[in-house]
Amino acid sequence: FENDAPKSLRKLIEDGGKKEMLDPTYPYSDRMVRDEYEDTLDALQIELVKMQDWVLRTGARVVVIFEGRDAAGKGGTISRVRQNLNPRVVRTVALAKPTPKEAGEWYFQRYIKHLPSAGNITLFDRSWYNRGVVEHVFGFCTPEQREHWFMQAPELERMLVNDGVHVIKIWLNVGRAEQLRRFLAREADPLKHWKLSSIDVKGLSKWDAYTDAISETLTRTHTDVAPWTVIRSEDKRRARIGAIRHILSRLPCDLADPAVIGEQDDSIVGGPELILRDA
Amino acid sequence: FENDAPKSLRKLIEDGGKKEMLDPTYPYSDRMVRDEYEDTLDALQIELVKMQDWVLRTGARVVVIFEGRDAAGKGGTISRVRQNLNPRVVRTVALAKPTPKEAGEWYFQRYIKHLPSAGNITLFDRSWYNRGVVEHVFGFCTPEQREHWFMQAPELERMLVNDGVHVIKIWLNVGRAEQLRRFLAREADPLKHWKLSSIDVKGLSKWDAYTDAISETLTRTHTDVAPWTVIRSEDKRRARIGAIRHILSRLPCDLADPAVIGEQDDSIVGGPELILRDA
Amino acid sequence: FENDAPKSLRKLIEDGGKKEMLDPTYPYSDRMVRDEYEDTLDALQIELVKMQDWVLRTGARVVVIFEGRDAAGKGGTISRVRQNLNPRVVRTVALAKPTPKEAGEWYFQRYIKHLPSAGNITLFDRSWYNRGVVEHVFGFCTPEQREHWFMQAPELERMLVNDGVHVIKIWLNVGRAEQLRRFLAREADPLKHWKLSSIDVKGLSKWDAYTDAISETLTRTHTDVAPWTVIRSEDKRRARIGAIRHILSRLPCDLADPAVIGEQDDSIVGGPELILRDA
Amino acid sequence: FENDAPKSLRKLIEDGGKKEMLDPTYPYSDRMVRDEYEDTLDALQIELVKMQDWVLRTGARVVVIFEGRDAAGKGGTISRVRQNLNPRVVRTVALAKPTPKEAGEWYFQRYIKHLPSAGNITLFDRSWYNRGVVEHVFGFCTPEQREHWFMQAPELERMLVNDGVHVIKIWLNVGRAEQLRRFLAREADPLKHWKLSSIDVKGLSKWDAYTDAISETLTRTHTDVAPWTVIRSEDKRRARIGAIRHILSRLPCDLADPAVIGEQDDSIVGGPELILRDA
Ligand SMILES: Nc1ncnc2c1ncn2[C@@H]1O[C@H](COP(=O)(O)OP(=O)(O)O)[C@@H](O)[C@H]1O
Ligand SMILES: Nc1ncnc2c1ncn2[C@@H]1O[C@H](COP(=O)(O)OP(=O)(O)O)[C@@H](O)[C@H]1O
Ligand SMILES: Nc1ncnc2c1ncn2[C@@H]1O[C@H](COP(=O)(O)OP(=O)(O)O)[C@@H](O)[C@H]1O
Ligand SMILES: Nc1ncnc2c1ncn2[C@@H]1O[C@H](COP(=O)(O)O)[C@@H](O)[C@H]1O
Repeated sequence: FENDAPKSLRKLIEDGGKKEMLDPTYPYSDRMVRDEYEDTLDALQIELVKMQDWVLRTGARVVVIFEGRDAAGKGGTISRVRQNLNPRVVRTVALAKPTPKEAGEWYFQRYIKHLPSAGNITLFDRSWYNRGVVEHVFGFCTPEQREHWFMQAPELERMLVNDGVHVIKIWLNVGRAEQLRRFLAREADPLKHWKLSSIDVKGLSKWDAYTDAISETLTRTHTDVAPWTVIRSEDKRRARIGAIRHILSRLPCDLADPAVIGEQDDSIVGGPELILRDA
Repeated sequence: FENDAPKSLRKLIEDGGKKEMLDPTYPYSDRMVRDEYEDTLDALQIELVKMQDWVLRTGARVVVIFEGRDAAGKGGTISRVRQNLNPRVVRTVALAKPTPKEAGEWYFQRYIKHLPSAGNITLFDRSWYNRGVVEHVFGFCTPEQREHWFMQAPELERMLVNDGVHVIKIWLNVGRAEQLRRFLAREADPLKHWKLSSIDVKGLSKWDAYTDAISETLTRTHTDVAPWTVIRSEDKRRARIGAIRHILSRLPCDLADPAVIGEQDDSIVGGPELILRDA
Repeated sequence: FENDAPKSLRKLIEDGGKKEMLDPTYPYSDRMVRDEYEDTLDALQIELVKMQDWVLRTGARVVVIFEGRDAAGKGGTISRVRQNLNPRVVRTVALAKPTPKEAGEWYFQRYIKHLPSAGNITLFDRSWYNRGVVEHVFGFCTPEQREHWFMQAPELERMLVNDGVHVIKIWLNVGRAEQLRRFLAREADPLKHWKLSSIDVKGLSKWDAYTDAISETLTRTHTDVAPWTVIRSEDKRRARIGAIRHILSRLPCDLADPAVIGEQDDSIVGGPELILRDA
Repeated sequence: FENDAPKSLRKLIEDGGKKEMLDPTYPYSDRMVRDEYEDTLDALQIELVKMQDWVLRTGARVVVIFEGRDAAGKGGTISRVRQNLNPRVVRTVALAKPTPKEAGEWYFQRYIKHLPSAGNITLFDRSWYNRGVVEHVFGFCTPEQREHWFMQAPELERMLVNDGVHVIKIWLNVGRAEQLRRFLAREADPLKHWKLSSIDVKGLSKWDAYTDAISETLTRTHTDVAPWTVIRSEDKRRARIGAIRHILSRLPCDLADPAVIGEQDDSIVGGPELILRDA
């Protein structure tokens, strides 16, 4: 399938070393070194466990939405967040494509069903933002439906936030060459082969349509109560750390230790402008 | 339990004939005669079946909310609406008091779960309006929660209407003497005894608190997209006919025959002012 | 569609008066008179309410399965049983045809989901017996699946009964002419038109296949712990009374008044032999 | 809490090296070396992915029950099984303690709800075997309920197997000293602290009651159609490999490569006798 991707990209990947960053605009040329990554991650995991205590104790409700192109690293990031948390407290929701019954319902209905009760955390692996991007790019919704959705999504989020739900929206961003490299790796790896869906492959030739849809979505749904945080995830390690750090810093969780949480890396974590600039 | 009600009321009931209207402000002194009731109801039932065809054919989604004090006639009205409709198309939703899990969720979540898919009709026997009235009167929610809910309920309804859901809100209104008469009848009737809940009995002495809560709720949630229709239901027969007529007239259902649907009786069916006047 | 039915049948119906019994083997030539029906029904309804009290008080679990050919009167009987009962205690379950997901599950799974918790009564309007009859007649299952099901259905019922669930199985039986008369009435009545499904119409020409499937099913699933009760329902009134009487008499409900429940009418209520004889 | 455990045990743990096996009857004195573990695991993971293809292609339904004392390694083993599988195909079910509604239902009902549809795999992290062991030891069920359950569990499993469901039951076994060591490690580790439930701690002083309950349960529910496989999990690595190997070898999965799956290690994987001997 790689023939669907431009030649120049494929050349780039062949030339690139295994661990080298392919996107010249990415601020680091190499992955974070393993030791630093593991130490930082371990420390943050402890803060996540404290955060979980806080959620249980205060009955807080937390929603984290993970979005991004295919192979942007949503699944891997989510599993690092969950790693040491109680599965009875934290749930991951990755909905399949809507059944006919669901397709006839209010668009948000099947997602709302999974919102957390007091003392619970819901991690959405893809979310209602499907309508903004993948459904649009593949024509699974009409332009009118999408326009309508652009009105409703921010309203719904505002209602949730007003109700006291903590809503955190993370957009993982990956460059075109890196995405292709990951697809090729999935292709080659018998363990990951199944991860390559037909939507992924067909999406390869729709890079620009995706870019436009993403820009519009980020711009129109970046609100004061539920802002987007974009994380450049060329380097998965830095991205995972950035995501956990962001989650911890967004919650008014008195148990967390600010010194451990550390400073966010502004060169790879920021608002939509981080991505819109180079979009 | 009748001792919880003022003496004057009890006298009124004793003096009143079985079928006489107890509320002097009610525009009719007697029930609609049986034959007229049955003929009108039969004709309207046929229109409801046509409406059901229209729902199925067009994939419309219809929500009808039935509210009102205890013994206002919600259950009986709903069963006349459903009588000849397909149970796979029309569902009645009468939720029990929230479980602890539900109590920790976004207030509207457990109701949203039951919103209709395309080609379905949901009849709510009580609804999210519990928070405006019964939860308030009995202290099951805080004043802050109720204030917050007053902001959210109209917003949610607006979102549903914008999404194309038909939202019809019916408030059945019953006077104090008539309510007590019905309670006494339930009390006396082994078939209906179970209908008398402890909330009903305790509510007797809270008539005025209910009245205030109802006035405020009707006023603050009567919106252009989801207006309230109040039906005076001293006479259950006229009220049932009024409700069905209202449902039929609110839906853009091309199959219905306006001549059969007939004119609404403005003296017992109208906006909130109908009730606020004599509240 | 009536042309699908034999001429002789149609003649019978035309000749028959509106209320006359069409089946010469039915022991009554006329319907039960209205007054007797209503008085008896009212008295039994009171016993049902007492039974409901007993269920709530003891935490009993009751399952009643209503089966029978189309138009045998399942829906009408169920609604008379429920009429004065609390909808939070008694639930009717009428499942639609299996979704693809359900079709891939253990056959009983989607039914088991609806079994009652303590203090609840579930009325099944059709049930797992679909596999024995309608799925077989229409080829919705393979003969192997049905054979397998014949082993499992009695085992499952035995497990439920051993667990203390009260399992009552009622088979409503209607003759060929009466069924056709009811279909024609549905056809003619705008209120009931929608009740006539394509399965009903196609089923007309499969009368004998149905008869065989029913005989086999009744024979092979009539067990000591979960026996079948067959009720001849040519006269709907007598059938409804028979069904309620049967339910009441099967439950060890100390509140019920045996004098009111009365004697069962053996000429129309009995074991499978009642039907197998004339099948 | 460690004072709840006998002194001798605590001494054993203090003396033992970090990686040394504490149970003298365990056939290995050291953990499997990391490299061998990782290579073997990687190879088996590929076979699991092939197995997943087979499940999807043939519409097979697979249930794997993971049981064992607290800290026996259920969670870790399950996560190694899932690691490279599609979350839409494989679901883990870890039910919380029954709600009042669930407690009133047929004991198996809440588990049956999660049985796989065609093309799905369900991994039960604890299961209906709770009644045999933990509910018994803590008095959450009566002896009669447990006796009754001993009749029903094998019957239910037989029904599932007859229906074509693949039912695999794995019992992870851990010695008393090793369990305590793991509890102490959880206690000390801020990441795992939350894993230590009050049931775990209270269970410490109930070792023998557990042992008896386990022996009885294994003996009475070890059937031809749904046999138990016991895996000694003093060494978590060998146990995980044993579990995956067992799952692969139990499924008639034509894609798997027997050479890769390899031979089972009979000294740590076997029938209930493996554990009953030293119980
Ligand atoms: N026909 C469809 N209508 C709406 N959404 C769809 C449709 N097909 C796929 N999707 C959605 O598009 C997203 C991407 O699909 P895919 O790449 O197959 O899944 P994933 O990225 O979760 O592996 C998923 O959230 C899926 O639910
Ligand atoms: N394709 C199918 N597979 C299995 N069962 C089916 C299928 N189609 C219809 N049925 C079942 O056959 C029964 C009779 O169907 P129908 O006459 O349409 O419904 P009803 O009698 O409830 O009005 C129903 O229980 C329905 O679920
Ligand atoms: N009151 C109870 N009744 C029945 N089962 C219970 C009860 N309390 C706990 N359990 C069950 O005992 C098992 C062990 O409990 P626990 O150690 O707290 O959970 P886990 O081992 O999953 O962390 C769980 O499956 C739980 O559902
Ligand atoms: N503790 C409670 N919290 C919230 N709502 C309640 C509570 N108790 C009763 N209700 C609601 O009050 C309404 C009237 O109750 P009842 O008359 O008992 O049916 C129902 O809609 C109940 O769900």
